[in-house]
Amino acid sequence: MNAKALVLEEKGQLSLREIALDDRLGADDVRIAIRTVGICGSDIHYYTHGRIGPFVVEQPMVLGHEASGEVIEVGANVRHLEVGDRVCMEPGIPDPQSRASRLGIYNVDPRVTFWATPPIHGCLTPEVVHPAAFTYRLPDAVSHAEGAMVEPFAVGVQASVKAGIKPGDLCVVTGAGTIGLMVALAALASGAGQVVISDVVDEKLELAAGYPGLIPVNVSCESLRDRLSLLCGDDWGADAVFEASGSPRVYDDAIACVRPGGALVLVGMPVEPVRFDVVAAQAKEIRIETVFRYANVYDRAIALIASGKVDLKALIRETYPFDRAIEAFERAAEGRPADIKLQIELPRA
Amino acid sequence: MNAKALVLEEKGQLSLREIALDDRLGADDVRIAIRTVGICGSDIHYYTHGRIGPFVVEQPMVLGHEASGEVIEVGANVRHLEVGDRVCMEPGIPDPQSRASRLGIYNVDPRVTFWATPPIHGCLTPEVVHPAAFTYRLPDAVSHAEGAMVEPFAVGVQASVKAGIKPGDLCVVTGAGTIGLMVALAALASGAGQVVISDVVDEKLELAAGYPGLIPVNVSCESLRDRLSLLCGDDWGADAVFEASGSPRVYDDAIACVRPGGALVLVGMPVEPVRFDVVAAQAKEIRIETVFRYANVYDRAIALIASGKVDLKALIRETYPFDRAIEAFERAAEGRPADIKLQIELPRA
Amino acid sequence: MNAKALVLEEKGQLSLREIALDDRLGADDVRIAIRTVGICGSDIHYYTHGRIGPFVVEQPMVLGHEASGEVIEVGANVRHLEVGDRVCMEPGIPDPQSRASRLGIYNVDPRVTFWATPPIHGCLTPEVVHPAAFTYRLPDAVSHAEGAMVEPFAVGVQASVKAGIKPGDLCVVTGAGTIGLMVALAALASGAGQVVISDVVDEKLELAAGYPGLIPVNVSCESLRDRLSLLCGDDWGADAVFEASGSPRVYDDAIACVRPGGALVLVGMPVEPVRFDVVAAQAKEIRIETVFRYANVYDRAIALIASGKVDLKALIRETYPFDRAIEAFERAAEGRPADIKLQIELPRA
Amino acid sequence: MNAKALVLEEKGQLSLREIALDDRLGADDVRIAIRTVGICGSDIHYYTHGRIGPFVVEQPMVLGHEASGEVIEVGANVRHLEVGDRVCMEPGIPDPQSRASRLGIYNVDPRVTFWATPPIHGCLTPEVVHPAAFTYRLPDAVSHAEGAMVEPFAVGVQASVKAGIKPGDLCVVTGAGTIGLMVALAALASGAGQVVISDVVDEKLELAAGYPGLIPVNVSCESLRDRLSLLCGDDWGADAVFEASGSPRVYDDAIACVRPGGALVLVGMPVEPVRFDVVAAQAKEIRIETVFRYANVYDRAIALIASGKVDLKALIRETYPFDRAIEAFERAAEGRPADIKLQIELPRA
Repeated sequence: MNAKALVLEEKGQLSLREIALDDRLGADDVRIAIRTVGICGSDIHYYTHGRIGPFVVEQPMVLGHEASGEVIEVGANVRHLEVGDRVCMEPGIPDPQSRASRLGIYNVDPRVTFWATPPIHGCLTPEVVHPAAFTYRLPDAVSHAEGAMVEPFAVGVQASVKAGIKPGDLCVVTGAGTIGLMVALAALASGAGQVVISDVVDEKLELAAGYPGLIPVNVSCESLRDRLSLLCGDDWGADAVFEASGSPRVYDDAIACVRPGGALVLVGMPVEPVRFDVVAAQAKEIRIETVFRYANVYDRAIALIASGKVDLKALIRETYPFDRAIEAFERAAEGRPADIKLQIELPRA
Repeated sequence: MNAKALVLEEKGQLSLREIALDDRLGADDVRIAIRTVGICGSDIHYYTHGRIGPFVVEQPMVLGHEASGEVIEVGANVRHLEVGDRVCMEPGIPDPQSRASRLGIYNVDPRVTFWATPPIHGCLTPEVVHPAAFTYRLPDAVSHAEGAMVEPFAVGVQASVKAGIKPGDLCVVTGAGTIGLMVALAALASGAGQVVISDVVDEKLELAAGYPGLIPVNVSCESLRDRLSLLCGDDWGADAVFEASGSPRVYDDAIACVRPGGALVLVGMPVEPVRFDVVAAQAKEIRIETVFRYANVYDRAIALIASGKVDLKALIRETYPFDRAIEAFERAAEGRPADIKLQIELPRA
Repeated sequence: MNAKALVLEEKGQLSLREIALDDRLGADDVRIAIRTVGICGSDIHYYTHGRIGPFVVEQPMVLGHEASGEVIEVGANVRHLEVGDRVCMEPGIPDPQSRASRLGIYNVDPRVTFWATPPIHGCLTPEVVHPAAFTYRLPDAVSHAEGAMVEPFAVGVQASVKAGIKPGDLCVVTGAGTIGLMVALAALASGAGQVVISDVVDEKLELAAGYPGLIPVNVSCESLRDRLSLLCGDDWGADAVFEASGSPRVYDDAIACVRPGGALVLVGMPVEPVRFDVVAAQAKEIRIETVFRYANVYDRAIALIASGKVDLKALIRETYPFDRAIEAFERAAEGRPADIKLQIELPRA
Repeated sequence: MNAKALVLEEKGQLSLREIALDDRLGADDVRIAIRTVGICGSDIHYYTHGRIGPFVVEQPMVLGHEASGEVIEVGANVRHLEVGDRVCMEPGIPDPQSRASRLGIYNVDPRVTFWATPPIHGCLTPEVVHPAAFTYRLPDAVSHAEGAMVEPFAVGVQASVKAGIKPGDLCVVTGAGTIGLMVALAALASGAGQVVISDVVDEKLELAAGYPGLIPVNVSCESLRDRLSLLCGDDWGADAVFEASGSPRVYDDAIACVRPGGALVLVGMPVEPVRFDVVAAQAKEIRIETVFRYANVYDRAIALIASGKVDLKALIRETYPFDRAIEAFERAAEGRPADIKLQIELPRA
């Protein structure tokens, strides 16, 4: 089938044009009319750099992987969804028979395919076919705009699950970009008592400051360790520190802020290997968790949004109609600090 | 030293009188002027029955174990507390060298002593000496009245920790008495998305209904399983079910409501052994956790209260001055459904 | 296709006859020439009682689910197996897209189908088609006879994983039947230092006594608790107690033997609900795990057998040729104590 | 009291001489006649370098912390030990009231004191006073020589516990020195099916090769990843990789060898920060654990040795009498590859 889509033709060149897409509906699939798609840093990175690590754009690829929509057709075996359901979708599809999938860690299945990761097309197009098992109904309380925020928020929830947050935990998040905020809000919603969040850009920290429970620290003018000690009244440290900046320079501070026996969760992806002080981590027997996307947390993320425990609406800075999608990408590529999330809305069928 | 105290002379007989109490301050201890003491079901049970299981009141015993106060003297080794600190106290003191203590599960140390558990005196008296290690500073945001609620709330936090609540969990609590409410509120604060709470007394459920996120179900007129299925849209079940009623009749429902691979947390203490359907639990590979008081959660409970994530003030029904303490106990012994918590206030020194 | 098979016609009536079986090979399947099949208590129970709980034999059903064999054909998508591979098979096949499967707990998928559980045919027939994902290659060091022991041993491994055995744990297993022995040997191989195993039948305990590390106790003439105390030199208790007898009378002893903070793992399936002393479990904050078959442990079970850490050969009491399969079942139905395992061997193609 | 001891006067200078030692027996202490003391790499490091990181030898210090002995006096509160008991001792003594101790992670208590870590005296002297809580009875099956091996073996057990080894795990240990061997043997005893152990020194690998289940790989002539793939028949990787060499160059290989969702356990202490490929770890969502000494594993280590699951005797290369202790240290300082352990024996009182 041919369909209009936001196509990355090659590095730096976007088109909104017809492209041939596979639209066969299998027995375990649903067909979804896409309603809202968020623009992710990785979409922008493919646009501006043409690659992320080993993933290279070698042929035109539809962008977009943060999406909500409406079910318009269901496959023969599908039981838990019906036509008309408002839904959001996990963009990664594993081999359900793989070793990783059988273990419940389908996100690390080496054969997973993921929307808008070359050579797989994304979802910035009016209709997609998707496995029902990775399509989640949105409760009435969750809008399409919020539904399209589930994907980035799921990364934060995955980080919280990996941290093993216990009620009342004191947490630190280094980096107040989109992912840092998602992690901080997920940690709060997961039972953290307070979350210190650090960055060097005041505009980002101001956004964080709007959330009760988030304590912003500008590390260009204040020591993170000192602030934490002040907050605790001692040098015990935080139960969990989430590294969400991707900056190698943060690591020493991050380790220093973890309490004895606490956790350091690596969410940010540093371009180069980092200089890691193993002995400093050992002296406190820190556990270090790494995060790669998410598995089995979409329903959790939706439940938290529906419960009102986390408000993601304030982070959606502007919404563009589908026919101005290229404009939206150009703005996103500017990287304005307060543009935590830009979204694109597709017309109702 | 002799001091005025609320003394249970024997089953059914309370006095407010002078009694000899040990007031020697060790190097690791603090002396605390008691400010607020909550009345617990166990206090009442000793008053009305003279015993709880193997613990029998055989000599006059000071009651009370839910307390806050103010530090008025610190031992030579104490570093983290100062005179003037507002504090609350763990009423159980383990042998710090015991096998259980070294494992971090000091609550199950067979040699633990516990306030107002025969023959150990409680804290309904103007001053107590307590190990600094089990004395916790209250942040400014936490009042003395809330400080005296930390003890029962800690049971709820312990239950949440045992459940291993993950963000967005759907939970069920059977029983909406004091402990049921504590467990439900702790579960919510620990990241649960929704908590269904069941009872047969409407007055208790109305109190629960006042908290967003708590879904009351009167099981005398509605099936818990059906309500849960309706809420979920399927028969999958709850991630964690907390039994907090102590009623043996609840067990079949409790097991039925747990999802495959979920947890059943036993908080309520049934007087008799219960009839337990092992095969029903096995068919879903349910994990069953049991709760005995708490360990390492007081700081967590305080952090949650301080964060504003849980509001316990609404549950304090009435506060009596120390010289009307016997009246307070008599009212508590009536067991009015909405009397979730009655407290006694001691005069400022 | 028609094939010869050991058919349970109805309660009490076995035939070795031709029966129509589905032999279509899907792209993710392998075809296996069956070589060895063990007789399980459940096979016998269907034979003698015609049902197990809700599972009723209502039409002729092929028996057998503990099997090894040789791959004779592979589906188009199969990568990890080749014709000629010696293999054993998980008898339960879940829906890989189900909620339970995505969580990694496919054993509790409500839609799982399982060999020789009505109305699903078992594997006592020369050829079966099976999903490659649930077919495991046997290393050279593991014989076909041992390969057919992987299924019951996997239950023991699952129990060990659920217990969370830590190195040097002291364990207790109540019941020295096939499952009790599997559990005890799995616990030992999983790092337990010593495993006390109890029963009332000396013949079973003598088999256990043959394994270094297993300490048999005949509870008809000796108190389990006393023996454990003697062994430990104190009343601390065992890190994990596995109930593998299915007898309701064992429960008080089982709880009494768990150390504070230890685990009770329920493997045996009591026909009726048991009388469970909740408060006794709470006083030590015991964690109770339940076991239902196994998930993600077949490869572990095979690795342990291949490593020489566990010797299952001594438990195979006698091996019958396929054409004497009915005789084998009749002997198994006698329930001789030392007949831990009887097996049936199919002729090489 | 003055007693003869092996004293490190300053960097490079040892004496066997009288020194004043505190020998007051507290109510919770025992007095122990030392029988066997192993020489640890850290003892040698203080001897040859005068410091380890922040710990500097600034005054004469008795060396030795791997010890067994015999109880010759017990304090008033001691219940679980008697005069005549053969014992071994944890060399680190935490503050039992500290926050870390209450959590059960007393090894990371910042206030822990540790034998032969400046300025704390070690145990190479005929008598020591030690807290009974950190003194463990040796079963008859465990000799004094083995008792003095419990300390280094406990590091291996701690690493296994941190890894969360499940039965049948495939493990890799990088580094076949004393700690690498301890870790490898502990992993095997903890349920690992096979343990690949790598080094560049054949003499060390030959020692490893003597243990069934250990698979030596000389990485100076063979690729660790290739060998692992060959062993597995695929590129899935090992469930747990233990870094025990302390070499920064091993890290890329170590990460590469971990399976998706597996664990990397950092035991070796690299002198400098290492270059760590965070993204490589994230792509497989590896969990990284760090090890600092041990907590709550001494009894486990003893149980494993007593069970016969691990044979440490073969690693004791030579035993010197106390009056030749300096000679023993000089030999140890030579660092001969096969000198996994040298021990010093004190005369029976």
